Amino acid sequence: MPLSSSILSELRRIVGPGDVLTEKEDLIAYSFDGTAALRQMPGCVVLAATTAQVSSVLRLAQETGTAVVPRGSGTGLSGGSLPSPDCIVFCLAKMDKLLEVDRANLTLLAEAGVTTAEVAEAAGAAGLFYPPDPGSMKSSTLGGNVAENSGGLRGLKYGVTRNYVLGLEVVLPDGEVLWTGNKCVKDVAGYSLRDLFIGSEGTLGVITKVLLKLIPKPAAKRTLIATFARMDQAAQTVSDIIAARIIPCTLEFLDRTTIRCVEDFARVGLPLDCEALLLMETDGHPAAVEEEAARMAELARANGAAQVLVARDEAEADRLASARRGAFSALARVAPTTILEDATVPRSQLANMVRFIAGAAAKYRLRIGTFGHFGDGNLHPTFLTNELDADEMRRVEQAFKEIFDEAVRLGGTITGEHGVGVSKKAFLPQFAGGAQMRVMRELRRALDPKGILNPGKMFD
Amino acid sequence: MPLSSSILSELRRIVGPGDVLTEKEDLIAYSFDGTAALRQMPGCVVLAATTAQVSSVLRLAQETGTAVVPRGSGTGLSGGSLPSPDCIVFCLAKMDKLLEVDRANLTLLAEAGVTTAEVAEAAGAAGLFYPPDPGSMKSSTLGGNVAENSGGLRGLKYGVTRNYVLGLEVVLPDGEVLWTGNKCVKDVAGYSLRDLFIGSEGTLGVITKVLLKLIPKPAAKRTLIATFARMDQAAQTVSDIIAARIIPCTLEFLDRTTIRCVEDFARVGLPLDCEALLLMETDGHPAAVEEEAARMAELARANGAAQVLVARDEAEADRLASARRGAFSALARVAPTTILEDATVPRSQLANMVRFIAGAAAKYRLRIGTFGHFGDGNLHPTFLTNELDADEMRRVEQAFKEIFDEAVRLGGTITGEHGVGVSKKAFLPQFAGGAQMRVMRELRRALDPKGILNPGKMFD
Repeated sequence: MPLSSSILSELRRIVGPGDVLTEKEDLIAYSFDGTAALRQMPGCVVLAATTAQVSSVLRLAQETGTAVVPRGSGTGLSGGSLPSPDCIVFCLAKMDKLLEVDRANLTLLAEAGVTTAEVAEAAGAAGLFYPPDPGSMKSSTLGGNVAENSGGLRGLKYGVTRNYVLGLEVVLPDGEVLWTGNKCVKDVAGYSLRDLFIGSEGTLGVITKVLLKLIPKPAAKRTLIATFARMDQAAQTVSDIIAARIIPCTLEFLDRTTIRCVEDFARVGLPLDCEALLLMETDGHPAAVEEEAARMAELARANGAAQVLVARDEAEADRLASARRGAFSALARVAPTTILEDATVPRSQLANMVRFIAGAAAKYRLRIGTFGHFGDGNLHPTFLTNELDADEMRRVEQAFKEIFDEAVRLGGTITGEHGVGVSKKAFLPQFAGGAQMRVMRELRRALDPKGILNPGKMFD
Repeated sequence: MPLSSSILSELRRIVGPGDVLTEKEDLIAYSFDGTAALRQMPGCVVLAATTAQVSSVLRLAQETGTAVVPRGSGTGLSGGSLPSPDCIVFCLAKMDKLLEVDRANLTLLAEAGVTTAEVAEAAGAAGLFYPPDPGSMKSSTLGGNVAENSGGLRGLKYGVTRNYVLGLEVVLPDGEVLWTGNKCVKDVAGYSLRDLFIGSEGTLGVITKVLLKLIPKPAAKRTLIATFARMDQAAQTVSDIIAARIIPCTLEFLDRTTIRCVEDFARVGLPLDCEALLLMETDGHPAAVEEEAARMAELARANGAAQVLVARDEAEADRLASARRGAFSALARVAPTTILEDATVPRSQLANMVRFIAGAAAKYRLRIGTFGHFGDGNLHPTFLTNELDADEMRRVEQAFKEIFDEAVRLGGTITGEHGVGVSKKAFLPQFAGGAQMRVMRELRRALDPKGILNPGKMFD
């Protein structure tokens, strides 16, 4: 049922007429997020500028039983902010004020619409560091990062978004505004509501402000790459690095398909005859960094690396890192539809998982480029396909299912950093099991009994 | 109403007759935890040995509407495992198997009754490190640590128990067994149930197994102490250390009363004419550690430290650290009742908070020794009192209330690491606010509608 004119006029009263979009081209612009092959037209788009507006809109939605799909920049990769039919798409990108950097307490307070890159820059300007670096960080917003518990390249050493959230302002599904958390590193007064909202994908509340923990900026950094004729040499190098008690800040993997696409796209100068490339970065005290970089190079060579390149300066480090940073863009050029997944396994199972993905590609006659975060077991098998080819898309789905099943069988998870959203919904019950599914549904019902917030996502 | 004979015989059938305790001396032994002045006789004590037993006992409790108070060693400091009248005290200390140390994935799996010290030792034996070190770690159990989200001396640099829990086996209030989490560093498949159970103080489920993250053992460590004539010199030193981008693994504070008690008790050789002592430890790469220790000593001197002592070897480091590790025992000797609190504030408010505590002691004619974790703002004002002196206990309560109010006013929390339990229950509503209280109650109702698990705690 389309939104009634009385709901639309009430929305216009709350946020102002210019911030309720109903024109077809606007609805189209908000009918998708960063996930391939998912589109749905909303009923309208509402742009919020203040927490009070968010509260009033949710109160109205609650009274009228209207679905609300919150979003920021819409860079998500699991359809988490895909509109439901006739919903209010509730965009918080205008709430973009960076409110405070507190150098004494190492915290940063910002509205939900501030981009991840702005947070990283503000931290850097104060000599501090905000480690989470999702691939879309230039445009992704902090509210979206928190809702999806975004990851990035630095998970192994520095953790993910969850590890940096100290406090949240959240508007509950009935419009009540809740503040949870504070600037204390330690706080055990009550359940950790903060952690419940982090990663809840917009189904329990709308995040309006975020208080982040920052850390001192590492004094030095060293970048190197190593290429290997065989993938298991790369996997063994990773195991040996961890066994040597080194925790690199970045430990990234590119497979042959990805290397070729990257080289074709960016001409980094990568060798094309290798099966695996590792990008390794270590940061911290200069002496520690020098030692660790040397030791990692040594371990790569001991495992038969064809080539080991240690960046001499920041420019060369950037060039080497660009091979990894540009991987998705490079892959996305070569096929009409690029489906980026994030099957994740315990680090000791990486070689098995990469082999299984290659096998699935062969079995289903598909092109899959695999890259990802080897340090934390978080792989991105990327399907180079065409959503208009129905037969191929069926094979893609079959391959997906086998890959996720295998990830779970190896003690891993169906999503390391992208979220469940719509894309992984079918795979969640088997992964989570009956007891977890029941508890998640009960928690959702407790906070949003009418189910107005982001319906149809995760397990709904 | 006492437990019926049919419930008792069913309990005996489940765990065996020897593991259901009903003798008066046994009930007395389980009538309290580590919290002063709180005692309550239970209906019986049940010792569980397996997850299946835990499940059966909870199913029985659910059917009969019987209150269950889970506990481990009973070292808690907020009355979190204080029995409720006629309840089943459900002790998991017998579930003490350390199941796996996985060196490749840096994880450890253990039953809930394993002690924190055993975890730390097993990690150390594998060249790895489990940082959380609550004061009671020699006897406190992992299940209790997770239920209370225990802290310790290393919170600033390494975080608390929550930061090391990757997975949990939890028995839900109706007896269903739930497993959440895995060995992956990154996992965003569904709500973080793990984080909801961590710190829920036994009110949402009974934790039976814990999967922990370990980290490589730091290669070097350096310990130093500095004494100051004035407390604000110590606070400024802490600010300056953070501003110098040093994150020590330990940054502890002792006030004059505590120093005197420690010296009287342990003869460490501390100067008695100072108002504040800082214990500082840095760990990591040897070069980093040397530099940071030197810089911290320099900053302490620049702030007018009366004395700075850098430990030359591990034996001296242990001696210096013992001044802090022994603080509570030293204070506990000097009065019949020792009430240890953990008001916590943002680091920038430490000096204000310490001054306020001293003022409250003077105003209410009380002896308070204050020590604690200056790095993370977590203070332990310790009341040296006598629970039989009704007038003094009234003054203690008034002082408490003012101290907690002030902590909240300064942007802090009523409990940094001890939990709410019974001790902080009266202070929670004002701290958390109406919206958080409502959500916590709704979550509890969703998981435990009859309220059989640890009733009367936190907000119940």
